[in-house]
Amino acid sequence: MHFELTILGSNGAIPAYDRHPTSHFLNYNGDGFLLDCGEGTQMQMARYNIKRGRLDHIFITHLHGDHFFGLMGLITSFNLNYREHTLHIHGPKGIEEIVRAHFTYAQTQLRYPIEFHIVTDDRPQVVYENSQLTVESIILRHRIPTTGYLFREKPGQRKILPEKIALHEIPVSEIGKIKQGADYTMPDGSVIANHDLTTDPAPARSYAFCTDTVYTETFLDQIQGVSVLYHEATFVNMHRERAAETMHSTTTEAATIALKANAGKLIVGHYSARYEDLAPLLAECKEVFTNTELAIEGQSYII
Amino acid sequence: MHFELTILGSNGAIPAYDRHPTSHFLNYNGDGFLLDCGEGTQMQMARYNIKRGRLDHIFITHLHGDHFFGLMGLITSFNLNYREHTLHIHGPKGIEEIVRAHFTYAQTQLRYPIEFHIVTDDRPQVVYENSQLTVESIILRHRIPTTGYLFREKPGQRKILPEKIALHEIPVSEIGKIKQGADYTMPDGSVIANHDLTTDPAPARSYAFCTDTVYTETFLDQIQGVSVLYHEATFVNMHRERAAETMHSTTTEAATIALKANAGKLIVGHYSARYEDLAPLLAECKEVFTNTELAIEGQSYII
Repeated sequence: MHFELTILGSNGAIPAYDRHPTSHFLNYNGDGFLLDCGEGTQMQMARYNIKRGRLDHIFITHLHGDHFFGLMGLITSFNLNYREHTLHIHGPKGIEEIVRAHFTYAQTQLRYPIEFHIVTDDRPQVVYENSQLTVESIILRHRIPTTGYLFREKPGQRKILPEKIALHEIPVSEIGKIKQGADYTMPDGSVIANHDLTTDPAPARSYAFCTDTVYTETFLDQIQGVSVLYHEATFVNMHRERAAETMHSTTTEAATIALKANAGKLIVGHYSARYEDLAPLLAECKEVFTNTELAIEGQSYII
Repeated sequence: MHFELTILGSNGAIPAYDRHPTSHFLNYNGDGFLLDCGEGTQMQMARYNIKRGRLDHIFITHLHGDHFFGLMGLITSFNLNYREHTLHIHGPKGIEEIVRAHFTYAQTQLRYPIEFHIVTDDRPQVVYENSQLTVESIILRHRIPTTGYLFREKPGQRKILPEKIALHEIPVSEIGKIKQGADYTMPDGSVIANHDLTTDPAPARSYAFCTDTVYTETFLDQIQGVSVLYHEATFVNMHRERAAETMHSTTTEAATIALKANAGKLIVGHYSARYEDLAPLLAECKEVFTNTELAIEGQSYII
């Protein structure tokens, strides 16, 4: 299964140096998921050839503008492009009221339904699920209620060893059960253990999206072993006081979370507009967690 | 006086081909005025090196998203950049409610005051005035209440002919009155007519911003002789039915207004996303009104 992240907006609150407010696009086997929708997201999608047709779920972390001011434009363009199928918006209390207020004043009647799913910040929970994925909320600590999101693949089926199936002349009707882990009983009553017929499925992959937040370990257990962790790193260490004041994280804090969570990879972003050169941020992260990459707009990362 | 228009967003409702939703920036002798503020306007300002410091007045034509979805981002960035002086927002009923709703949910307390000036669509009126300019609303016809804006320079003072002042030994204390059109009475009682001492001031320049609207002649008298007319031309003539349906104008309609208004120049824009090549729009306009230019983002036009 294809599982790929594309960065649409990498910057913090103020756009700068052609870096845009936060938005991440996840492609899971052709299904699109948008994480935050800063101003200009629809233009960034066009710029990087993101297909909108299969985007049915948008997840908003919190109601600071740099995380959702692009939502109204995207919704409106969907409408003008004759979208008919439902759009699901997952986000904090208030998001529905803001969206509906716009349409009231614009006297717009949407051609397609929007379903709002309010995500609370009291405890982590599964906020969305389909046959292949679950999405859980992650409780973050910021100036207003904020939740991250954790995408997890559901465990795959065991992989059949075709030569063993042939050898034992196992009928096709049994394959489904064997993929799910069942042993096979031969016509003579002898039992062949599942692990002689199959190999382990590919490990389930996961992507955690943690922005905006101070350093907090409250969600470490939840994201333990995550394949790719995105954690905001708005400031370098020298500006740690500013980070505390605005309830953001430093490079070292983001990298420490990645280390303690045993993440496969860390991607950092939400850069303060004061940094034109991002190399120092990357260097500080790598001192703590080697496998760190910068979120770069237009760049894709295979999960 | 410097009087210059810069196009920040030239497209209609759906951004396309790196063309953005509507926004025009007027620089009058260093003072900035923003006309509409589509999504991405703050990024476009950065891209084209527009100085924000002296932008104190924003004029919004109507509450369709492609004309104001960039407003919240701009207001927020002003705040993050420690703006302190008042921002004036002129626009239709509802604009204040939408802006305030955002700040309520974001729990944002602005560092600077915003004053809202509600522009009604019942009759044209002066909505803003300073020592150099007046701004009038223009009543347009669209699907929701919509007003354009007409910027007019105030008539300048008459220009002194220095050699005549020297010849008649006119004291400096009289110059102010003469600039305002007074004749001069010599110590011997003889009168020198003003037109022997001065020449006419430079003609007052004007800029009319007319979007979005169907073809309507109701404001022709008001904009008669305008130096530069911006009139939306969303569609080519072939798509005139679509124009009527959506209450937009065609190329020929925009050019006809320019012709009947005796405009010095016509600029057209608000292009439908269906047109990648804009040359046919320009050609259709020029058939009716030769001095037409396309609104091109980043391009500046001296008024």
